[in-house]
Amino acid sequence: MFTAENWPIGANMLSFGSTTTDGTPTLEASSSVWASQLRQVKALGVDQIDPTDAWLPLAKLSDERVEEFRSVLDGEGMTLSSISMTRNSVVDVKNGEQNVADALRFIDLAPSFGVSVVNTGFMQATTEAQQKAIWFWLADGHVDDPALRDLAIERIRTLGDAARDQGIEVSLEMYEDTYVGTADEAVAFVKDVGHEAVGLNPDIGNLVRLHREVEPWADMFEKVLPHSNFWHIKNYTRDLDPATGAYSSAPMPLKYGYINYRQVILRALELGYSGPFCCEHYGSDSLGVIAENVQYIRQVLASALA
Amino acid sequence: MFTAENWPIGANMLSFGSTTTDGTPTLEASSSVWASQLRQVKALGVDQIDPTDAWLPLAKLSDERVEEFRSVLDGEGMTLSSISMTRNSVVDVKNGEQNVADALRFIDLAPSFGVSVVNTGFMQATTEAQQKAIWFWLADGHVDDPALRDLAIERIRTLGDAARDQGIEVSLEMYEDTYVGTADEAVAFVKDVGHEAVGLNPDIGNLVRLHREVEPWADMFEKVLPHSNFWHIKNYTRDLDPATGAYSSAPMPLKYGYINYRQVILRALELGYSGPFCCEHYGSDSLGVIAENVQYIRQVLASALA
Amino acid sequence: MFTAENWPIGANMLSFGSTTTDGTPTLEASSSVWASQLRQVKALGVDQIDPTDAWLPLAKLSDERVEEFRSVLDGEGMTLSSISMTRNSVVDVKNGEQNVADALRFIDLAPSFGVSVVNTGFMQATTEAQQKAIWFWLADGHVDDPALRDLAIERIRTLGDAARDQGIEVSLEMYEDTYVGTADEAVAFVKDVGHEAVGLNPDIGNLVRLHREVEPWADMFEKVLPHSNFWHIKNYTRDLDPATGAYSSAPMPLKYGYINYRQVILRALELGYSGPFCCEHYGSDSLGVIAENVQYIRQVLASALA
Repeated sequence: MFTAENWPIGANMLSFGSTTTDGTPTLEASSSVWASQLRQVKALGVDQIDPTDAWLPLAKLSDERVEEFRSVLDGEGMTLSSISMTRNSVVDVKNGEQNVADALRFIDLAPSFGVSVVNTGFMQATTEAQQKAIWFWLADGHVDDPALRDLAIERIRTLGDAARDQGIEVSLEMYEDTYVGTADEAVAFVKDVGHEAVGLNPDIGNLVRLHREVEPWADMFEKVLPHSNFWHIKNYTRDLDPATGAYSSAPMPLKYGYINYRQVILRALELGYSGPFCCEHYGSDSLGVIAENVQYIRQVLASALA
Repeated sequence: MFTAENWPIGANMLSFGSTTTDGTPTLEASSSVWASQLRQVKALGVDQIDPTDAWLPLAKLSDERVEEFRSVLDGEGMTLSSISMTRNSVVDVKNGEQNVADALRFIDLAPSFGVSVVNTGFMQATTEAQQKAIWFWLADGHVDDPALRDLAIERIRTLGDAARDQGIEVSLEMYEDTYVGTADEAVAFVKDVGHEAVGLNPDIGNLVRLHREVEPWADMFEKVLPHSNFWHIKNYTRDLDPATGAYSSAPMPLKYGYINYRQVILRALELGYSGPFCCEHYGSDSLGVIAENVQYIRQVLASALA
Repeated sequence: MFTAENWPIGANMLSFGSTTTDGTPTLEASSSVWASQLRQVKALGVDQIDPTDAWLPLAKLSDERVEEFRSVLDGEGMTLSSISMTRNSVVDVKNGEQNVADALRFIDLAPSFGVSVVNTGFMQATTEAQQKAIWFWLADGHVDDPALRDLAIERIRTLGDAARDQGIEVSLEMYEDTYVGTADEAVAFVKDVGHEAVGLNPDIGNLVRLHREVEPWADMFEKVLPHSNFWHIKNYTRDLDPATGAYSSAPMPLKYGYINYRQVILRALELGYSGPFCCEHYGSDSLGVIAENVQYIRQVLASALA
């Protein structure tokens, strides 16, 4: 059992993007670029990261470059909280099989980094409309095809088997319009997978920012927390103008947004939650807010575990 | 006269709700539950609370249980800043007389807790539509009946007499669609009551979150601050889209919302305000934001009283 | 080259308004009023200000009163980061020539206060509709007349000459519906002025709060940062409801709003930005947020210059 001080809580590196300012993919960048970005995180008091494939897809590195990454990470005195895949669905019509192969390599690499959870999900590449919107969640994106749900279950079981063999787990990130797009769908999906090494990532921040009707957050968490083994955690304001039907939402630190995370984290602990946290934040000074959120979670855990 | 350090500033306990997570009313819960919740407040650096009847209705406790509460409070090294009643109007058609009796008992109990103000108001139970809304203030709620205004004045005078006899005061919480729903109505009502021991609670946060036209906050405070003896203090963003007429608002820490509380608190002191503050906050991590707000008020008071 | 500790970063004094609470113009107020307001800023850990003409128009003070101001400033241990003019356009049909004269006096005074940049812009007095709106930017305001653009260029060159003679610079504040109202217009205008002592103030907070379509902030900064020599810096949330077309925005601390200022400030440094910063903030506890923003900028600079 973790303490408030050593509970794995990482900063999602996606705020650094997938390329450096001169356009070089992070994947191809020299390890001194990786080091300099890690140092920016560390300077804010955070020493764990999630090297999402939206930043540096470890699965696509040669063994040699993986060791180079490990050495940079060690050199900066940092560790990994978790490894996340994003927008690389195992049932992507074009890249699904490649994504399965990548996920298997992530699962293979995870234990050597002390990582207990590899995260994946079913959202896919953002559309042009999403890229042009003020926030990508304001435009319609990929919708999962019900015809591929059985294949999705089968491939997630494959990942689950590999994870179990490594002594780790796979987590499925809740995201609108995917097989795990609502609390009920997420619970149904994970039950249909029915694998001891597969759980949910209750990333309900993905949902409360949407400009559409969403189940009350407390109800959603009650349903999904018992199945959760990892947590992309973030918050937003949320409002609805009754006269016009206009929704509004905006990214906010965990403490200030719509969801009462003090209450939810305490409830999660009551329900036995013991997975890592991964702080992510879109817009604003993502990194600055993430650092603040990491400290916030430790304070709430300290108060709960006192 | 208080200093910035000892000015009574309490955390409203309504963030803990009226029942524990297993559904037991706080009223019936063991005193160890009360203690554990008080400890959560204290852990955030706040040592005064308002035990609103929405958390623990002291007026409904037996004398013995009141002493049990007092002993828990003392044991945690905490005190009361104030005592608030909420949604228990003295002119509630069904429970008005009971609510008067409860208010009288609160007034009776207050001095023994060092409390100088008992707060009440005319808002009533939330409607089903309010309970289902993203925020309860987005749906229409109770509207005061003009035919009962005289009775309301008479009953508030009764409370005022009882308060004066105890050397304390009664405060009336501003809330939309009640007798004290706008600055002008609030001033008119308190003047019609015309009682030395009855003042206003300028809870203008209740108003600036509404999706309707509201008088500018600075104008409202100018009118009501001279009559104010207690303060439920909270803040919200506020915006209006000119093209569609859509309003938006969201709960925010005192420092970040629409109302400039540094300016308003300084103005209140200029006008002779000397009542307690009670921090409340809906949505978000209510308790965490309240704790931040308590420190904020002390900083502003320190700067003003320097 | 500045360090994170001594980079000029001032609090814009406009949060104190142009009159004291009893209606006396700041201009005519006794210097003890100035001192008391400066002390409020200092108490929050900020020791540099921009004495905007919306607070205390130094250009309108007699030489004697200027020295009185200097002595108060020294006495409080404070300095000026910059001097800003606001809503006093050099092509104001009525007051344009007076505004040029005032600007020249500001430029004349600046070096003796250690100020390297005098800021001006083309926005004009707020309309009655703007004064009545929840936020002044929600109503339509002054629109620059294309017929006066040549005159504007000529007069700005006059200011540029005077600034160059004093060894300082003039900065033009980006503001909607003026000659420098978009990134492209701002770059075109400053190129047409073509003066070594004239640059831009990328006050893009003025734009992202608007309830209309605005170029993505990252694109705007890429265009204008290479021409920028001063920076009114502030942030807002920004959202758009796709179904109704309703925009929403609200003032936020630099760290929490729509623009990622950590990223933008680092980019500005890469591009050679070396001008002062001036923090301003409308609504909320302007002064409290400004103080927080000053510390924020120093933290980001420290991380970048490490």
